Amino acid sequence: MAKVINLNADMGEGFGAYDIGDDAGLLKVIRSASIACGFHAGDPVTMQRLVTQAAAEGVSIGAHPGFNDLWGFGRRRIDVNPRELEYMIAYQIGALQGMACYADAKVTHLKPHGALNNMAAEDAELALAIGRAIKTVDRDIIYVALAGSEMEKAGHRLELPVAREGFCDRLYDDDGNLTSRKVPGAVLHDPETVKERVVNMVLNDEIISRSGKSLRIRLDTLCVHGDEPTGVIVARAAREGLEAAGVHVVPLPELALV
Amino acid sequence: MAKVINLNADMGEGFGAYDIGDDAGLLKVIRSASIACGFHAGDPVTMQRLVTQAAAEGVSIGAHPGFNDLWGFGRRRIDVNPRELEYMIAYQIGALQGMACYADAKVTHLKPHGALNNMAAEDAELALAIGRAIKTVDRDIIYVALAGSEMEKAGHRLELPVAREGFCDRLYDDDGNLTSRKVPGAVLHDPETVKERVVNMVLNDEIISRSGKSLRIRLDTLCVHGDEPTGVIVARAAREGLEAAGVHVVPLPELALV
Amino acid sequence: MAKVINLNADMGEGFGAYDIGDDAGLLKVIRSASIACGFHAGDPVTMQRLVTQAAAEGVSIGAHPGFNDLWGFGRRRIDVNPRELEYMIAYQIGALQGMACYADAKVTHLKPHGALNNMAAEDAELALAIGRAIKTVDRDIIYVALAGSEMEKAGHRLELPVAREGFCDRLYDDDGNLTSRKVPGAVLHDPETVKERVVNMVLNDEIISRSGKSLRIRLDTLCVHGDEPTGVIVARAAREGLEAAGVHVVPLPELALV
Amino acid sequence: MAKVINLNADMGEGFGAYDIGDDAGLLKVIRSASIACGFHAGDPVTMQRLVTQAAAEGVSIGAHPGFNDLWGFGRRRIDVNPRELEYMIAYQIGALQGMACYADAKVTHLKPHGALNNMAAEDAELALAIGRAIKTVDRDIIYVALAGSEMEKAGHRLELPVAREGFCDRLYDDDGNLTSRKVPGAVLHDPETVKERVVNMVLNDEIISRSGKSLRIRLDTLCVHGDEPTGVIVARAAREGLEAAGVHVVPLPELALV
Repeated sequence: MAKVINLNADMGEGFGAYDIGDDAGLLKVIRSASIACGFHAGDPVTMQRLVTQAAAEGVSIGAHPGFNDLWGFGRRRIDVNPRELEYMIAYQIGALQGMACYADAKVTHLKPHGALNNMAAEDAELALAIGRAIKTVDRDIIYVALAGSEMEKAGHRLELPVAREGFCDRLYDDDGNLTSRKVPGAVLHDPETVKERVVNMVLNDEIISRSGKSLRIRLDTLCVHGDEPTGVIVARAAREGLEAAGVHVVPLPELALV
Repeated sequence: MAKVINLNADMGEGFGAYDIGDDAGLLKVIRSASIACGFHAGDPVTMQRLVTQAAAEGVSIGAHPGFNDLWGFGRRRIDVNPRELEYMIAYQIGALQGMACYADAKVTHLKPHGALNNMAAEDAELALAIGRAIKTVDRDIIYVALAGSEMEKAGHRLELPVAREGFCDRLYDDDGNLTSRKVPGAVLHDPETVKERVVNMVLNDEIISRSGKSLRIRLDTLCVHGDEPTGVIVARAAREGLEAAGVHVVPLPELALV
Repeated sequence: MAKVINLNADMGEGFGAYDIGDDAGLLKVIRSASIACGFHAGDPVTMQRLVTQAAAEGVSIGAHPGFNDLWGFGRRRIDVNPRELEYMIAYQIGALQGMACYADAKVTHLKPHGALNNMAAEDAELALAIGRAIKTVDRDIIYVALAGSEMEKAGHRLELPVAREGFCDRLYDDDGNLTSRKVPGAVLHDPETVKERVVNMVLNDEIISRSGKSLRIRLDTLCVHGDEPTGVIVARAAREGLEAAGVHVVPLPELALV
Repeated sequence: MAKVINLNADMGEGFGAYDIGDDAGLLKVIRSASIACGFHAGDPVTMQRLVTQAAAEGVSIGAHPGFNDLWGFGRRRIDVNPRELEYMIAYQIGALQGMACYADAKVTHLKPHGALNNMAAEDAELALAIGRAIKTVDRDIIYVALAGSEMEKAGHRLELPVAREGFCDRLYDDDGNLTSRKVPGAVLHDPETVKERVVNMVLNDEIISRSGKSLRIRLDTLCVHGDEPTGVIVARAAREGLEAAGVHVVPLPELALV
């Protein structure tokens, strides 16, 4: 039986007069778009445009909620109360659902942004708060969670569909965590390297850590980054490599998730 | 056949550590709550609390969207593009729908806030933009419109349910517009005066202007203001007066609207 | 020789239509006002009003900068970069200096707000960043620092005037830190208790911890809180007690600081 | 006697992770920089960078205050109260003065941004409110005003130094107003056309309107736009043309203003 995988990217992260990332380019390569919801970035106009463009490309859409910290672009950790976080997430899901009506589309996944994603990966309380927001608003929404993280556990505990996420363009440490961006070479820019790695990730459920160790990690979705200058090229390499290896690259709702 | 009318109020207009208005008191008197959606005021925590409290009181809920101008509390006119306005409204409806899931409630009406309400009452383009947002997100949402305004016309043109709104505690000019708050006495604080006026409004479809002229105005809903110190007392007087006169005071979805 | 001490309070922490705390009442009791600068709270209108009122009462003014987190009222810890923090502080000092021109007044002290104050008390990097901002904009500005904190050390290291701060209305742990607000009784509301404590603090350089231990702490300024309902009463008790004991209660610039 | 003129541009209009315009390129061509102050755009980090870079290039700095409308980039008209506007301007001047300390520089001019500039050009109340803010904070700050506008009059009435501004890269109507950007060709992109026009503006105090009419307008400063892709090229053409014609292109404080 053929392997299947999803390719996702974050997008719609401009604000008003400001633009960032090559959304149009990425939408031709990925299969699921995580759309900023107006807190760390994004606004009603970008959201309307993205849901419409994604629908036109057959790309499924998800919420990409973040901290209400536009200046910090959602990349600063904020000591948030789980209850406030939960409602802040429910708000952002609802806002995107409202905008999705412009494309007759459904919001089918959720992936936290930046510092919130990092914090929820480590902290069960925050991971559960996000999960409860999903469950309250729409229990069919797929919780995209770093493989092995507290988010993955929280999703299972709340009986939500969970997609385990890996990264096309990042090195991993021996313990399965992403190598810090401060380490030289932590972000991969070479399309051929990326192509080889992602094929191995999907066919063999294996990631080679930066020290050369073999990690066993089963993934449902691979993330590419649109804000790197090489983002679209790297994403295209990943997709081509996967398809050449016989892998089906599908939108998140077409995966058979546990 | 008994007359029916709705009593509504704006609420949830605090933000973070800030509180304003006696929401809990008003919820015991009114039948429909227009809840601030995080732009001119309100936040996910206030919204969650209000939808839950409203549901517990049998009060129907609606979106109370405003300009993204917290400093101005949505009371400053902003020269907004109709397309941007439309998406800004859809976003706010969606956000409240997300929060309404916490009370298993539906968002059943929409009433614009402050300067936006004033502008849309006069400007067909803006009134239609708001209407298109409603129609896109949920065409069953009742468009609460100042009686005789461009909003009322836009709602009819878009075939949305429309509730014509009057004000319990405000004087009217001879042309049917509200007397400016700058005119002394424009806001009514005396419960007996209010009681007498609202009964006449509902039983006789008549408003006596401040010059004494009789205006023929058919209303579906009456607004009370929670931010005046006398707000709850005036609201209670209005409701008692109406019920003593045999009028049924019902939530907006129980009205038979055209 | 008579003892001298300063009484300070945070104020101007409303925003737009929102008001909080009894600033007018406190200004009659305290001698130095720390004014919110528009980031965690405050706006140009509140700042203009406060600098004018403070000048009329002979109260010296200082900057009360916080995180740009209005929703969290500056009470949420944010993982801020020291360089960004430094510039954010310089900006807020300058903004208040601009507003102080309306009262021909000088900004003579600075006290960080909320979570920023807590973080800088513990973290030398942040404490130094705040100090560098002061030193760059006006090296005569007094750095108000929790007695014994990293802020006190940073101020001395940068050769800034430092005022060591204690709290009129808070319990202390044995290690000299404030007892967490989560501990019942951590905030004092009884005017007589406060009066007795502050007199002992100033006359004897002693604070009795909540376990009864005697702590040796030399203070230059005592903080009262305006946002507690008993704030003004407690502040007045503190001032009356101090003056009855022969202590001079003066504005910060009249202290002889090291 | 040789003619003198100033060349100015708006800059520092990014925010957090967002960047816009080629500030570094423009700083090599212009002589005065109007720096966004954190309301319509800009933040403490961009402001610190700009004041430092401007000082290094011998470029004088000024405040470029706007509405607190980041989403609208200060381009939306807001129905602001003159008193609130005045304090909002004083705040922004002060904030930039604070940041200017990082370059030991003085804020020597002020030019309103976007919609605020357009509104104050037409409305004496708003023009005076801005002028009063300048006068309160530093009466030596030059009020940069569209030639012939209410701002020019307000500046003279308040006895502030005024610099009359014209535009290098914009067509004018017969009445001396700028041709609306909606008219095709209203923005000039051809360096040779700009060069010829600016030399005529400065040497002959004449602007040829788009219908060919000769307008008599005496200018002190010419604005170039950095956000157009051709901004730097057009700016360089203007400066080269002026210098080839023997005009001295100087920072604003070196002009002898009335």
